[in-house]
Amino acid sequence: MAGNTFGKLFQLHSFGESHGKAMGGIIEGFPAGFELDIDQIQFELLRRKTNQGVFSSPRKEADHLVLLSGIYDSKTLGTPIGFMIENKDPQSKDYDHLKDVYRPSHADYTWEKKFGLRDYRGGGRSSARETISRVVAGAMAKQYLQNQGIEIRAWVQQIGDVEWEGRDFPSLEAIENSPLRCPNNQAEILMQQSIQAAAQDGDTLGGVIYGQINGLPVGLGEPVFDKLHAVLGHAMLSINAVKGFEYGSGFEAAAMKGSEHNDEFIMQEDTIQTKTNWSGGIQGGISNGQSVYFRVAFKPVASISKMQNSINNQGESVDIEINGRHDVCVVPRAVPIVEAMAAMVIMDFCLLQKMNS
Amino acid sequence: MAGNTFGKLFQLHSFGESHGKAMGGIIEGFPAGFELDIDQIQFELLRRKTNQGVFSSPRKEADHLVLLSGIYDSKTLGTPIGFMIENKDPQSKDYDHLKDVYRPSHADYTWEKKFGLRDYRGGGRSSARETISRVVAGAMAKQYLQNQGIEIRAWVQQIGDVEWEGRDFPSLEAIENSPLRCPNNQAEILMQQSIQAAAQDGDTLGGVIYGQINGLPVGLGEPVFDKLHAVLGHAMLSINAVKGFEYGSGFEAAAMKGSEHNDEFIMQEDTIQTKTNWSGGIQGGISNGQSVYFRVAFKPVASISKMQNSINNQGESVDIEINGRHDVCVVPRAVPIVEAMAAMVIMDFCLLQKMNS
Amino acid sequence: MAGNTFGKLFQLHSFGESHGKAMGGIIEGFPAGFELDIDQIQFELLRRKTNQGVFSSPRKEADHLVLLSGIYDSKTLGTPIGFMIENKDPQSKDYDHLKDVYRPSHADYTWEKKFGLRDYRGGGRSSARETISRVVAGAMAKQYLQNQGIEIRAWVQQIGDVEWEGRDFPSLEAIENSPLRCPNNQAEILMQQSIQAAAQDGDTLGGVIYGQINGLPVGLGEPVFDKLHAVLGHAMLSINAVKGFEYGSGFEAAAMKGSEHNDEFIMQEDTIQTKTNWSGGIQGGISNGQSVYFRVAFKPVASISKMQNSINNQGESVDIEINGRHDVCVVPRAVPIVEAMAAMVIMDFCLLQKMNS
Amino acid sequence: MAGNTFGKLFQLHSFGESHGKAMGGIIEGFPAGFELDIDQIQFELLRRKTNQGVFSSPRKEADHLVLLSGIYDSKTLGTPIGFMIENKDPQSKDYDHLKDVYRPSHADYTWEKKFGLRDYRGGGRSSARETISRVVAGAMAKQYLQNQGIEIRAWVQQIGDVEWEGRDFPSLEAIENSPLRCPNNQAEILMQQSIQAAAQDGDTLGGVIYGQINGLPVGLGEPVFDKLHAVLGHAMLSINAVKGFEYGSGFEAAAMKGSEHNDEFIMQEDTIQTKTNWSGGIQGGISNGQSVYFRVAFKPVASISKMQNSINNQGESVDIEINGRHDVCVVPRAVPIVEAMAAMVIMDFCLLQKMNS
Repeated sequence: MAGNTFGKLFQLHSFGESHGKAMGGIIEGFPAGFELDIDQIQFELLRRKTNQGVFSSPRKEADHLVLLSGIYDSKTLGTPIGFMIENKDPQSKDYDHLKDVYRPSHADYTWEKKFGLRDYRGGGRSSARETISRVVAGAMAKQYLQNQGIEIRAWVQQIGDVEWEGRDFPSLEAIENSPLRCPNNQAEILMQQSIQAAAQDGDTLGGVIYGQINGLPVGLGEPVFDKLHAVLGHAMLSINAVKGFEYGSGFEAAAMKGSEHNDEFIMQEDTIQTKTNWSGGIQGGISNGQSVYFRVAFKPVASISKMQNSINNQGESVDIEINGRHDVCVVPRAVPIVEAMAAMVIMDFCLLQKMNS
Repeated sequence: MAGNTFGKLFQLHSFGESHGKAMGGIIEGFPAGFELDIDQIQFELLRRKTNQGVFSSPRKEADHLVLLSGIYDSKTLGTPIGFMIENKDPQSKDYDHLKDVYRPSHADYTWEKKFGLRDYRGGGRSSARETISRVVAGAMAKQYLQNQGIEIRAWVQQIGDVEWEGRDFPSLEAIENSPLRCPNNQAEILMQQSIQAAAQDGDTLGGVIYGQINGLPVGLGEPVFDKLHAVLGHAMLSINAVKGFEYGSGFEAAAMKGSEHNDEFIMQEDTIQTKTNWSGGIQGGISNGQSVYFRVAFKPVASISKMQNSINNQGESVDIEINGRHDVCVVPRAVPIVEAMAAMVIMDFCLLQKMNS
Repeated sequence: MAGNTFGKLFQLHSFGESHGKAMGGIIEGFPAGFELDIDQIQFELLRRKTNQGVFSSPRKEADHLVLLSGIYDSKTLGTPIGFMIENKDPQSKDYDHLKDVYRPSHADYTWEKKFGLRDYRGGGRSSARETISRVVAGAMAKQYLQNQGIEIRAWVQQIGDVEWEGRDFPSLEAIENSPLRCPNNQAEILMQQSIQAAAQDGDTLGGVIYGQINGLPVGLGEPVFDKLHAVLGHAMLSINAVKGFEYGSGFEAAAMKGSEHNDEFIMQEDTIQTKTNWSGGIQGGISNGQSVYFRVAFKPVASISKMQNSINNQGESVDIEINGRHDVCVVPRAVPIVEAMAAMVIMDFCLLQKMNS
Repeated sequence: MAGNTFGKLFQLHSFGESHGKAMGGIIEGFPAGFELDIDQIQFELLRRKTNQGVFSSPRKEADHLVLLSGIYDSKTLGTPIGFMIENKDPQSKDYDHLKDVYRPSHADYTWEKKFGLRDYRGGGRSSARETISRVVAGAMAKQYLQNQGIEIRAWVQQIGDVEWEGRDFPSLEAIENSPLRCPNNQAEILMQQSIQAAAQDGDTLGGVIYGQINGLPVGLGEPVFDKLHAVLGHAMLSINAVKGFEYGSGFEAAAMKGSEHNDEFIMQEDTIQTKTNWSGGIQGGISNGQSVYFRVAFKPVASISKMQNSINNQGESVDIEINGRHDVCVVPRAVPIVEAMAAMVIMDFCLLQKMNS
């Protein structure tokens, strides 16, 4: 009820503050008897951790997953899968000077007013470190979906003002060999230049991630309020720093004509397909068997190292400088998170669709 | 669970097929002892029905609301408010020739595959007529919110390729005096021309609606998965024909720098405000007291009168022509629906925030 | 959230006050393509209405069910089934003198304090007339379950101090041919005498209903918090006037020894059975394939015609006499309600168990 | 959805198998800014662990609670409270010989059929060790409720065939000074004798726990399906080994007359009270300000040390002898669990009632 649960039948209940003892969660509704590859989950946690493609950059050590329940002999038991990742090396003191200050465009002010107090260390629960739990649940969902022929992949299409329109489903390797998770060399070089320039200015950048889901059966999504794209949008918009979501033709659809936008049904090899796919694989809120594709917009990181004006909790004007280990652009690191949320949404709809079987 | 319920504490359970006996729903969680203005609800149903501003055009008769429970002596009882609107004048025969055909970019194919059968008459439950129930629940929520100083308004910013960037909160009269619900004369004239041209071609248009919420307290929204904008996005994306949602800086944020995008906190008349509002009134998923604003993209209507190719449920190629009473552009009629969904979201968060009091 | 919804995947959302326009509800989650027998639903409404077995007594006219959505060509569409039963012949004036009075052991006082106001006419939403919606949903669930070989039946075991221990699954006819729904002639005669004596005193009686479910597959129920018997108990305790619930050995188990109480597993015709069934068909919260049986205790009707002392909403002492059409003992009429709730519970668990297939 | 979550606004999400790495859970919805006494939680865990009153018997070491999130500076943050208790000293080998055997009246058979596999070690998730998480959540709820003047206490009324009718709210000390948590010396001596006799026979005993809640405000509980006693009953019936629940007059009500059973309203010191309390503090499903009291029946422990016949997963007949550390009677240890579940129910209803303020 208080916003820490995602999903209906396949659920993630999440917990954890950035500088508390651990992040973690409970995954409920994972079908019993499934053999999980734990290394694959660790791999996704590594992807989330490094701001560079995991294949191309010197490996950092990933956050270490501790499984607490729900799995026996590497098979799921049908019972809740409890898990945690301990928070190490907190350096909480870095945050002492920000204790009473509301950083611009952070969650400091709103969370303190909502709850009457806050854990100021590293953003507490509003920190993007919370996405660890999503990646764990998403990594499990991915394995389940892969078994059914469903593939989910996301990559970077834009960083700052460098855009690349690429929409060909790349291999995982192509994405992970790119330091910025943009599987286009030329675009990536320009993006790298933008990032370096911003870094020199003590500034930060946003961007756009493109996601695609292949191999979906017809019939996923629930009519009216839980249309496939509505829940997918909810999932994406819940990720830190996201400002917009569109699927299929998206905002461009507004300027298109019905005769252009309609996707003609055709028969191909005895199955029903559409000639074009402006619908983004979803019609009337339900998957039609074509690829689902969508775009997610991220704002620039709010923690800039430039001096800023703000106010403190006494209403006094203060100058602040945010130091510490902050990324210039987090968009590449958000790629596995986008994939994880998409996997959780699709898995939930797969389970819900069993009602109609 | 099956997608016909919206909200957590303030809930709409919705039912109804386009050509069934009635549309309707149950509103649960409306606080007791509130005096509802039923005429205001009828007014919103009228706004939804006419594709022209209600003040400027010859009035059509609105759908007639029948209240079944939950209100006594015009006060809410704290019990569920059951309601219905009967479906009159169905003209089901208009649809007989479409019984076996999958109309392009409609829900015909996906719903039939999902459920194994469908009510083909007028789209059944996938029809936009379903939004009647949303407007009823939204109209009640609006009254509750207005009592607390919260105002929600939406208007048309784009139809086809005619865009107008206006972001000044207009009066309800300014919106309703405009046949296209675009409170800018010049833009509206161009939009009208576009619509006429499309009509002559037997074609249809999409557009963009802009919504704004003023007067919000600080603290609405639930952390992590149910951020204010995530639930708002879910709500908007669940409306028929919507393809995209953005709030605050939206997709533009991707190309902005952190130093531009950060909203500086300032004191104004003893309250904390921000100098700019790229955050769209939401930080860390929680309202910060500034205006919440957002944009919703609609695809062009799929029912075009041009001849189209499609297939039927035998997999045979067919030519189809969709006749009947179809709008060239439904975006103006979607304005009260956007407002209704926004009102439901905000009211639910107001009730949830009582947990923290 | 506010208590008017029952079930998880198979849900009843209920509405209606006793003297409002209509009682009704929405049934969500009924699988698509099922052919419903509407007469059977009307039959269950008739059973609920009459306080005598439907076969043996002069038929009253049943409450008339109006289906509003979700069914086309007598098949379920997979969309919500909206329905209502209009409240006729209200005689609201009968209640005017009770407007300010808190009747002893009624909901008058608690509901008024909870909500700040109440619809005093006939108990408003606290009236047992609310169970109409349960009977409709239960009647649909019964048809679904019968198709899968699951039979649910309930009958009267006790009225006042007359007890009958019968536990042989009777035919529906045997139950309905009995005016008190007690399929034992001798017991029934004594019960009738008790009722007549109470009626002469202006007094009322309670009783016990026994319910049994045959033909369940192994595996229904959800571990830990939603054990089959826990949800069944919740369902029964939610019925008006219920004071206790036990299943299997029930309260007697407290005085039994483990060696007596344990149900030995045996093989019978290649299936696993138990020699005894103290478990009541449920072990570890999950059905084991044996019959599920349970008992539900009802208090005597609170509306007695004897003069009583009470207080009014000014805190003044008042004498009250409750007139009108009140039953001496409602237990026989509660039989179809017990069955309906059991059917809803089992159907929900059947759908949930699809997750494990 | 899969039965591991309890509550609506105040929620416990629970995880853990008896011989897995840890038991634990997430508590969501605990209001922010509350100072929790962690020692009190440990105290409740100690009460649950020992089968003797904690004050009177040599102290065992309690299960050690590890708090993972949601609390900072010993104050609740309004974020989810993750916690775990590690499973030490598992002695899993004790269970190897039971791997393929279905113990009579255990969850072995049903869980294996439900999920297709099971963690046989110590009952896995069906073990009563799962109640640890309930006690943690309940201990937190108790502190919240105590702050509002609400006291919850439970004690033993029956073990085997020794019954004691005591209904005077005892002090915590009186309960904990009794090895069997029965605050009546004479009854306890008889109960002890029964337990010793059963132990000598290799047999086990059940019993009855009585619970009472004092200091409730008027207005708790949600109409129709979530009546206070229906949710309380659900909570109690979800505890391992429970076979029945009654509140107020309970099953005795069946034989009472309306004129006896009705609780007359009276004014006492300017507040509305009832002369008798057959209603058990609940009318129309809503608390009326009087004490809520209820009784919970437990079956005898299924793990008896007598030789038993059963079958294995090949359908073969087997003789089994259950050794290991098993209690003759667990009822005294269930006392803090009954209190914990009651506390969770009441706290949830307190939060829900904020909707009506």
